[in-house]
Amino acid sequence: MVKKDKLTIAMLSGDMERALAALMLAVTAASMGMEASIYFTFWGLNVIKKNDGAPKGKGLMKRMLNIMNRGGSSRLKLSRFNMLGLGTWMMKRLMKDANMPSIDEYITMAHEMGVKLIACTTTCGVMGLAAEKESFRSEVTTVAGAAYFLSEAADSKVTLFI
Amino acid sequence: MVKKDKLTIAMLSGDMERALAALMLAVTAASMGMEASIYFTFWGLNVIKKNDGAPKGKGLMKRMLNIMNRGGSSRLKLSRFNMLGLGTWMMKRLMKDANMPSIDEYITMAHEMGVKLIACTTTCGVMGLAAEKESFRSEVTTVAGAAYFLSEAADSKVTLFI
Amino acid sequence: MVKKDKLTIAMLSGDMERALAALMLAVTAASMGMEASIYFTFWGLNVIKKNDGAPKGKGLMKRMLNIMNRGGSSRLKLSRFNMLGLGTWMMKRLMKDANMPSIDEYITMAHEMGVKLIACTTTCGVMGLAAEKESFRSEVTTVAGAAYFLSEAADSKVTLFI
Repeated sequence: MVKKDKLTIAMLSGDMERALAALMLAVTAASMGMEASIYFTFWGLNVIKKNDGAPKGKGLMKRMLNIMNRGGSSRLKLSRFNMLGLGTWMMKRLMKDANMPSIDEYITMAHEMGVKLIACTTTCGVMGLAAEKESFRSEVTTVAGAAYFLSEAADSKVTLFI
Repeated sequence: MVKKDKLTIAMLSGDMERALAALMLAVTAASMGMEASIYFTFWGLNVIKKNDGAPKGKGLMKRMLNIMNRGGSSRLKLSRFNMLGLGTWMMKRLMKDANMPSIDEYITMAHEMGVKLIACTTTCGVMGLAAEKESFRSEVTTVAGAAYFLSEAADSKVTLFI
Repeated sequence: MVKKDKLTIAMLSGDMERALAALMLAVTAASMGMEASIYFTFWGLNVIKKNDGAPKGKGLMKRMLNIMNRGGSSRLKLSRFNMLGLGTWMMKRLMKDANMPSIDEYITMAHEMGVKLIACTTTCGVMGLAAEKESFRSEVTTVAGAAYFLSEAADSKVTLFI
């Protein structure tokens, strides 16, 4: 059996446009018959945090961090021209006008197309999150550390750090 | 015939220092006998937008976006210490003092050395640009989507996401 | 003899979380038996600048740049929620609570585990630094240009641009 080409993405950023880029590329790769996985770390964990979750975390620090940094795909912002939300809102409108899926829809689509969504256990702690599947959306099927990411990357045709 | 090593860069950022890094690496790769291409997407499209173009785009949204985000290589800013333009001006002076080419000169040089400059069609729409060659400088010879980037990347020795 | 897998990281950013990610990945790779090297360029040079150095550089421009951009691992900031230092301080506390090494400790550890730390000569000039080992911490053993980075990358299993 021929081994499939693989795409591995490390997603550190919490910017809306970078989240979009990562999801678009993973979905495109899957549609081309490649294996694809996205490994969310640091601010990237915001993309896969539950949208409805109340700020949690044990200890004052973690709770404070969760209040400042609510996370969830619906709260992602553009890195530029956010302008108190106006720029981000315009971008979402333009995406809709272009019949482009939203970030939420991309996550569902990615999951359904077999893209593996992985939460980085090594950085959950410093982001105020428990390193377990319950901290994340249901589409996230794996939680794993940096060594896992590196072995996947070493086995990939294309690795991107976004 | 031996196949050449290939460098593929995805350029999402519109920051001056990241544009410089991408162009320097592509030009260096070409001078080492490697094939090189840069795939501009999201804010990266600003690097290859025409410098003289008046804000265009169909529809109010796209026109507003083009007014906020004029683009063009001469308008790129540092990600830090821009200080209303002072830091960016200083960086340009230091580059000149070090006999380093400007971004404009790098783009011309890259093109003449055979570096392929590609505009991402998938994100032209959300950046308020028409997905055609006329939106960009003459050095941009190709407009193509995410699948094109991924096949190039799968065929490359080195792929960088900048 | 079997050749070791190699990880090459280009580190352009001066953000604390990106520096952490680069160092964590390099140290993890080394512990997995991979060769690893980090190539610091642009703001990334701040990570390996001496912490105790007074602002230096020849010429008014370079001195001004060094005053604005002091650098050194202890001055790195989060890209978000820095809040005049509060967010960065919280992150450092959370790292300590999780028994995670500091950036300084990571640099020492990386060096001791054989991770190669390289300063980019091509960008030293525009960052107001002399392109020589004396500008950097003792753990930095090599100063080299973009061509060096590209040959290392072409020989690597995994290359990341952070």
